[in-house]
Amino acid sequence: MSVYIAPQQDTIFVLDQLVELDKLAAQYALDDVSLELAEVIVQEAGKLATDVLSPLNTTGDKHGAVLVDQQVQQSPGYKEAYQQYVDNGWATLTGPTEFGGQGLPNVLGTAINELWHSANMAFALCPMLSQGAVEALTAHGSPELQKRYLHKLISGEWTGTMNLTEPNAGSDLAAIACKAKPEGDHYRIRGQKIYITWGDHQMTSNIVHLVLARLPDAPAGVKGISLFVVPKYLLSDEGEPTELNDARCISLEHKLGIHASPTCTMSFGDNDGAIGYLIGEPNKGLSYMFTMMNHARQSVGLQGLSISERAYQQARQFAKDRTQGTTKEGQKIAIIDYPDVRRMLMAMKSGCEAMRALSLCAAADIDKHHHGDLDAKARVEFYTPIVKGWMTELSQELTSLNIQIHGGMGFVEETGAAQHFRDARILTIYEGTTGIQALDLVGRKTLNDDANALKQLLNEVSNTVSQLSTSTDTTLNQITPRLNRALQKATAVKDWLLAQGKADRQMAANVSVDYLMMMGYLCGGWLMAKSALRAVELSGQNNLNSEANTYSEDFLTAKQGTAHFYAEYYLPRVHQHADTVLSGLSSTFSLDTDQL
Amino acid sequence: MSVYIAPQQDTIFVLDQLVELDKLAAQYALDDVSLELAEVIVQEAGKLATDVLSPLNTTGDKHGAVLVDQQVQQSPGYKEAYQQYVDNGWATLTGPTEFGGQGLPNVLGTAINELWHSANMAFALCPMLSQGAVEALTAHGSPELQKRYLHKLISGEWTGTMNLTEPNAGSDLAAIACKAKPEGDHYRIRGQKIYITWGDHQMTSNIVHLVLARLPDAPAGVKGISLFVVPKYLLSDEGEPTELNDARCISLEHKLGIHASPTCTMSFGDNDGAIGYLIGEPNKGLSYMFTMMNHARQSVGLQGLSISERAYQQARQFAKDRTQGTTKEGQKIAIIDYPDVRRMLMAMKSGCEAMRALSLCAAADIDKHHHGDLDAKARVEFYTPIVKGWMTELSQELTSLNIQIHGGMGFVEETGAAQHFRDARILTIYEGTTGIQALDLVGRKTLNDDANALKQLLNEVSNTVSQLSTSTDTTLNQITPRLNRALQKATAVKDWLLAQGKADRQMAANVSVDYLMMMGYLCGGWLMAKSALRAVELSGQNNLNSEANTYSEDFLTAKQGTAHFYAEYYLPRVHQHADTVLSGLSSTFSLDTDQL
Repeated sequence: MSVYIAPQQDTIFVLDQLVELDKLAAQYALDDVSLELAEVIVQEAGKLATDVLSPLNTTGDKHGAVLVDQQVQQSPGYKEAYQQYVDNGWATLTGPTEFGGQGLPNVLGTAINELWHSANMAFALCPMLSQGAVEALTAHGSPELQKRYLHKLISGEWTGTMNLTEPNAGSDLAAIACKAKPEGDHYRIRGQKIYITWGDHQMTSNIVHLVLARLPDAPAGVKGISLFVVPKYLLSDEGEPTELNDARCISLEHKLGIHASPTCTMSFGDNDGAIGYLIGEPNKGLSYMFTMMNHARQSVGLQGLSISERAYQQARQFAKDRTQGTTKEGQKIAIIDYPDVRRMLMAMKSGCEAMRALSLCAAADIDKHHHGDLDAKARVEFYTPIVKGWMTELSQELTSLNIQIHGGMGFVEETGAAQHFRDARILTIYEGTTGIQALDLVGRKTLNDDANALKQLLNEVSNTVSQLSTSTDTTLNQITPRLNRALQKATAVKDWLLAQGKADRQMAANVSVDYLMMMGYLCGGWLMAKSALRAVELSGQNNLNSEANTYSEDFLTAKQGTAHFYAEYYLPRVHQHADTVLSGLSSTFSLDTDQL
Repeated sequence: MSVYIAPQQDTIFVLDQLVELDKLAAQYALDDVSLELAEVIVQEAGKLATDVLSPLNTTGDKHGAVLVDQQVQQSPGYKEAYQQYVDNGWATLTGPTEFGGQGLPNVLGTAINELWHSANMAFALCPMLSQGAVEALTAHGSPELQKRYLHKLISGEWTGTMNLTEPNAGSDLAAIACKAKPEGDHYRIRGQKIYITWGDHQMTSNIVHLVLARLPDAPAGVKGISLFVVPKYLLSDEGEPTELNDARCISLEHKLGIHASPTCTMSFGDNDGAIGYLIGEPNKGLSYMFTMMNHARQSVGLQGLSISERAYQQARQFAKDRTQGTTKEGQKIAIIDYPDVRRMLMAMKSGCEAMRALSLCAAADIDKHHHGDLDAKARVEFYTPIVKGWMTELSQELTSLNIQIHGGMGFVEETGAAQHFRDARILTIYEGTTGIQALDLVGRKTLNDDANALKQLLNEVSNTVSQLSTSTDTTLNQITPRLNRALQKATAVKDWLLAQGKADRQMAANVSVDYLMMMGYLCGGWLMAKSALRAVELSGQNNLNSEANTYSEDFLTAKQGTAHFYAEYYLPRVHQHADTVLSGLSSTFSLDTDQL
């Protein structure tokens, strides 16, 4: 099995040079927040990730969660690992301070979450879901509900779940049929939910289910959905778990991957009805979900990076160790020295770096938005489907390259490469498929916005191109024209969308995924170029400041190399996807259903 | 589980309009061969594929082959299915008539093999390997060996295996260490072989292992490898299996997919040494392997088509059945009517059609080469790495789209979509990885050939462009400029290879996979355009001949639709890969090993 080591320096570089964390901390008077703090917590989290969570990743794949006597038994070792995660205070990182959280910015939470998902994605889904419950309750729960539930969710003493999907309501939440009947100060919830991640386990003394359901008099469709808290164990007046609520896991899915993450079918109200408490106002459930959506979707996008990084580290180690063939002098050749293996490793490394840059910048924009920056809000809205859609799609390719580098061994389960590939396959599906992200991007975030956010982003890319253009660095001079051509092509796509796409929404939908992928590769190329620019500046600097000092010359030239590779290897995809967009894929419906 | 139905009309269309089977039969006086015969055998094979092999595909995934008491037990039902396959005479299809084969051309064998691999790839690997053994013995075996082994291999009474790989010799056969010691009229073979497909089973009364090993005085490297027949059971003078040879399966791989195909570690000579018989001359084993290689590699490429077709059929059915959302009038909407789902289905269908066109044309060139056509030989050499590399790479994407169309259900194993995705993952690895194919294409088949075969192919594409240019059909007029631009780009790549690539072989290696993928998409686009051209001609024809009559108007317009989609969706990838080639990926080695 592969060893996972947190890519600390890469994370710090992005926080430092692209996010400009210190500036952000100063601007919003986040006194405790600094690059130094980031270094410390990445280092500490890295230890837990490497020593505890990463080795359990294989265990969990082989011995997935099981349902025994209507109770889910998590994979061996997971309860102890979770306890350690809680004891070390990791659950509290970004929670609001008034409920026991550390109140650190989302961008730092994201930097750390990357490590958890790399080390053990199936495990890390559990705290990820809890974070969603915390967010919902913090934003919309009554003070009473907050008091009873938030402290223990934030400390990690309890975990949280999100109950949305039903057998007939997948991407279409309007079809939700779960019912909630008022009864005194609470409601009785009845119905079935499917695909509930970590819907049950024995790691904590309680589980807080957030459930979408309809009140008796609710309007049809998405405007009649309300959000409820349904605890696994009902609480005493003192807030301690007492008797079991009428909510249970009735089956587990047998999945392609993430075996350690129990995917539950939850049945609410088989007997008297599960007791639940309304969050916020009636019929606002969906809009409450939307407030969490940007963060949740970005979190899944982040998983795309995490699992790719994990796969990259494994592929790199294998390629260094494995020899094939000999030199003329009879020396064995490590396969890392073969051009095509090197190409694949560079594709993985530069892809991961681009994703990390995008996800941390997008995460920082969530922080800026929370502090009232409306430009950042527009960016968050625009970035989110790209982070979710593009990064998870790219992770399919990069985890597959890990198998490819392993050759025949990659297809053998014991090697572990296959697990990352299988685990990754859920990422383009849950929390909204790539198609859903793409419709969101092209519709709400572009056409309905008159492409303002898009124009803003293209302006930023243009500014970077201008900066690059003044450089005399030979590597940057390789990157600049490629980025500029990609920018011009994306500008043509913008114009096309505003003309053709606006006039023909179906045509816009035809090309939506290509538009999303184009934007992903462009954003990646832009941030990689920016990284290279910073690396050149830092490298050429005579007066090294303390930050710059932390980067070795090797590290800085590598940043230029991966950016150069990205430009040669990935930027042509901007044109490919753009050409498909510009065709309008007018042939999408050229066949009748019966001709397919 | 999905039902598989042979895409009979599509197969016949390619054989008729692109391969021009009747012309081929006339040219080489293959009296029995005709389109009518093709229709009959596709229909009959389709029945066995649908009724017998296809249902066992899931069984084999759930209950893979197991090793019990040093014997491999195949999946339940497989022995009976294999017997039916043999009883119906399918094993004999292309075998030479002097040993009981039907002597049908390779292109018909390929058309039928597509069905077996679609229905049950793990099963079909067994006869596929036997075909390799037949080919080797037919080409290089002594009359005595042929007499003793060929009849029963061709009838299917026995099966064959290929024993190449060893723990330290993966892609690098020079490292083969297995030993063969002369002893009278035979040899004693000792050593271990890994990844031996269908290396053991109980479906037949014997198994004929073909084994690469070194004679005592053999030169080092690839020039010292000889090829041996090593039967599982030694033969009596009458040619009947008697006692067990000293060759056994000592373990099975636990694989990501194709669970029903036992992947054996074979141990030869644990006791007295396995008795083997030399095929042909000493030290020529590798060159004998090369004579089989084009066919074997094209067969694996074909598997890429087969599994994609299977995945497409499943996705199509699901998309028709599954509803999400309602129209304004309250009618449920089948997801097949959503643009992005339709896009994915069109990507799958047009991708399969392009692959089928390429694989059958390449298969027919093997026939033409066998009949002495030297131009065809050059095409076979050039096509083979493209068929193998591009088609198997594309199958990764298309089997993944099947999961994507299924949404959450695609990630659940019971649906069966995940199996095709898992099974497909081996295809870019075995029988030479994509990287190996790409090196072959760029090196031996292009640069060493002064790009003559490439130029020939570009000429053929150019001819098609010229034919298309004279058409007034509106769909063709959409396709023509796109194909022409792709052709121009490929021509630029040819020039680059002859200039830069020839001067810098490492740079050529950097971009080899991109070159291969570019060629694949170009070949696909060319043949799809040709199909559309034929469809337009047939459709506009007033004097329908009997062949043309077999195609409905719906079928012919669909051919134009998928070709149009291919041009909009896949041809931009020619430019993407070409742009990467033209960059030389000069950054591939920009990082030292330690910087990765």
